[in-house]
Amino acid sequence: MKTYHPITPEIVEKLKAIVGPSHVKTDKDILVQYQTDYETNPLMFHVPEAAVIPGSAEEISQIVKLANQYDFPITVRSGGTSLADGAIPVCGGIVLSMERLNKIIELNEEGMYMTAEAGVRTIDLQKAAHERGLLYAGDPSSAESCMIGANLATNAGGLEAVRYGVTRDQVYCLEMVSPTGDIVECGSILKKCSTGYDLQQLIIGSEGTLGIITKVTVKLVPLPPYRFDILGIYNDPRKALHMVPKLLKAGINPTSLEYMDNSYVRGCADYCKYDNMPHYEDGIYVIITVETFREDELDSKMEIVNDICEETGAVEVLEADERVWNMRRSCQPSAELISKVFLTDDVVVPVHKIAETIEKIMEIGENYPFQVKINAHIGDGNMHIVLCKTNMTEEEWEKQVEEFHQQVYAYAYSVGGRLAGEHGIGAKKLKYMEEFTPAGELKVMKTIKRAMDPNLILNPGKVIDA
Amino acid sequence: MKTYHPITPEIVEKLKAIVGPSHVKTDKDILVQYQTDYETNPLMFHVPEAAVIPGSAEEISQIVKLANQYDFPITVRSGGTSLADGAIPVCGGIVLSMERLNKIIELNEEGMYMTAEAGVRTIDLQKAAHERGLLYAGDPSSAESCMIGANLATNAGGLEAVRYGVTRDQVYCLEMVSPTGDIVECGSILKKCSTGYDLQQLIIGSEGTLGIITKVTVKLVPLPPYRFDILGIYNDPRKALHMVPKLLKAGINPTSLEYMDNSYVRGCADYCKYDNMPHYEDGIYVIITVETFREDELDSKMEIVNDICEETGAVEVLEADERVWNMRRSCQPSAELISKVFLTDDVVVPVHKIAETIEKIMEIGENYPFQVKINAHIGDGNMHIVLCKTNMTEEEWEKQVEEFHQQVYAYAYSVGGRLAGEHGIGAKKLKYMEEFTPAGELKVMKTIKRAMDPNLILNPGKVIDA
Repeated sequence: MKTYHPITPEIVEKLKAIVGPSHVKTDKDILVQYQTDYETNPLMFHVPEAAVIPGSAEEISQIVKLANQYDFPITVRSGGTSLADGAIPVCGGIVLSMERLNKIIELNEEGMYMTAEAGVRTIDLQKAAHERGLLYAGDPSSAESCMIGANLATNAGGLEAVRYGVTRDQVYCLEMVSPTGDIVECGSILKKCSTGYDLQQLIIGSEGTLGIITKVTVKLVPLPPYRFDILGIYNDPRKALHMVPKLLKAGINPTSLEYMDNSYVRGCADYCKYDNMPHYEDGIYVIITVETFREDELDSKMEIVNDICEETGAVEVLEADERVWNMRRSCQPSAELISKVFLTDDVVVPVHKIAETIEKIMEIGENYPFQVKINAHIGDGNMHIVLCKTNMTEEEWEKQVEEFHQQVYAYAYSVGGRLAGEHGIGAKKLKYMEEFTPAGELKVMKTIKRAMDPNLILNPGKVIDA
Repeated sequence: MKTYHPITPEIVEKLKAIVGPSHVKTDKDILVQYQTDYETNPLMFHVPEAAVIPGSAEEISQIVKLANQYDFPITVRSGGTSLADGAIPVCGGIVLSMERLNKIIELNEEGMYMTAEAGVRTIDLQKAAHERGLLYAGDPSSAESCMIGANLATNAGGLEAVRYGVTRDQVYCLEMVSPTGDIVECGSILKKCSTGYDLQQLIIGSEGTLGIITKVTVKLVPLPPYRFDILGIYNDPRKALHMVPKLLKAGINPTSLEYMDNSYVRGCADYCKYDNMPHYEDGIYVIITVETFREDELDSKMEIVNDICEETGAVEVLEADERVWNMRRSCQPSAELISKVFLTDDVVVPVHKIAETIEKIMEIGENYPFQVKINAHIGDGNMHIVLCKTNMTEEEWEKQVEEFHQQVYAYAYSVGGRLAGEHGIGAKKLKYMEEFTPAGELKVMKTIKRAMDPNLILNPGKVIDA
């Protein structure tokens, strides 16, 4: 990997001249706050040489030009919720914190769109839309802390992608600062467009390596006023997963389709202190949410969902009440009851391959000394595989996790899957990206990266080894 | 523009060695068939130096490597239905005809996808899906003659994009031959993916300038069994267009939303020889199609559509029968009744700007001696502006059309629109693309083109002047 120029006092002065002295941090005590995101393994931490908090795209443009001139790298930080080490400055240089770009610029009800600066929290976009009876349909689990610009950068998914698609599908256009410092508008507020290359789709999901997203215009959709939540309980994972294609073909258009294996059912019930959850001992939970615009559709669709659950062998079909959703939302913290050290992975496979993939992963897991737990957005083929460290040395844990991942990723690719459904590659999976991506695809990605960012200034050490 | 090496006998021999002697055409009589697509102006015609009809991606890869070695350009031709001179070899070289890549490889009902070679006609994909009770939702007006690879290359739209989106939204993945001759898979059969750059979205809509699409995997969706078609007749274009946002917010999810101005109502009724169409003299037709999965939804949704038409001032609301749809499908040929020489344009604006845009275009048109007619996919903000030549010289016609377009495009960009909603830029609008595209955006497009296609081999003279 390339070696960069250190952040000298001269560079610090120039940065201060751009954003104002109070928005450049160089105190070790402060910089240490930027050493990690949701990463918990200190081996992955990196303290930046400076943290810069710009107030506008124009300032960011000047900073990027400075970085090209002096040859130092820039790592963008939004809410700091990356599960792939996306916000860690692995090559040093500066961290660029987006927190001051926090204004909603326009909510246009007639045009059904909203324009916001990149540092607006996702939940604030959601709330602003709700207040007008509209929906911003991007809904990553970290909506309360993550920022919209970073949602685009990682192409965040979430709980409602079955119906509404991922972040990529919610975007009309974006403004970015290019790796050479130009401010570029990509896309437009159009439903159809065949006018040159689709740059915004290239930037979305590029994890800050092809441009710094500074402004976003997202689609708003009508907010469905009616909703039901059903809990299908199974005791055989195959049966639980077999219901997915049936449901997707029934024209129900479900909003969510969530899966918790029995270890999660027990773990989350314990974590939430719910005493008498149904089928606590052996149940697998499938939560199905359906939203409609008319009340009369509710009954007929509920009946269809019920029938599909019963036909596919559910042992019980209930209403998924608030407790069930609280359990679903507690999957991540509940793992702490088993071990303070645990890893969350994010593999995705074609929807019709998810049953065999989950079975295979559990089978692979049997050869390892740690506990393997799975919750999944099964309507999307997207699994979160959580590994909980048991009584073993740090070295043994690292070695075994690596071996397990090699096997799981190889299997996922063999059925047409990919490394990450919604968390991104970041620094964490760069090694696997280089290993598993077909050569032709990787070559085109690197060609684009090198052409757009000839000095490799933006987010080096992430996604690909350009 | 760059000058290329001519196609010498030596190159012809090498091409024959790759695809077989019978699949390389050099007879002038045959080559003349490749001089145009849907272009009718002979000034735009270009005869290729050779036409090559490959049988596989491997052969195309070898041809592209040969083109890089000898420095000759390649223009891909599919169904030859481009309205933007997309298939015309404006820089000479060879035309690559995709007609032999015509196999559907797999229709997977469980996974709800279909994989086909690029030269399969769109209608054959549609039929294959229908036979299994599924829908391929891409539906350009030229579906009977156009090919799926070219649908991706231009990001074709069509009549059902309001509900289903454009071709871009129907694609899981594609195989392309890169401009340097690598065979590259882009994308995967996944509902969520955050694993590197989204190359397939970059290739889609790039009109053959960044890669030659050789294989496509498209999404299939459940086929809604119920449907109704309503005709709202208005006598004020503002009122007709005012109903669009109301309908889109009502949660109706219309499949089509089509607009014919009164000149089209009269012209198409005459063309189809329908004697007693309602409001022939002054009516503006808006056709609304809604599809549902349950019969009971039909009545309630039909009532809502009726109410919206009446509230927005429709003078009559009827069923849109087969005659109305025949008229809609005759818009293009009906223009011939007015003039043998006419031009079809394809501007797109934000949906909430379409009323004022149509009004403005008609106002601009009043200053010109030709007739201006508009039909529109109003749910998408996408207008087809047809200009019919009246009694004027060829030079006068060219000059006046150019002036009219300058004014229309400037207005479209001023409200956030773009040059092309579904026909692409091709050679026809390259000049306007260079003029109207913001500098930063154009710079990034050219950077990508030059990096991926350093010898400018693929489809030169199209989209941008790299």
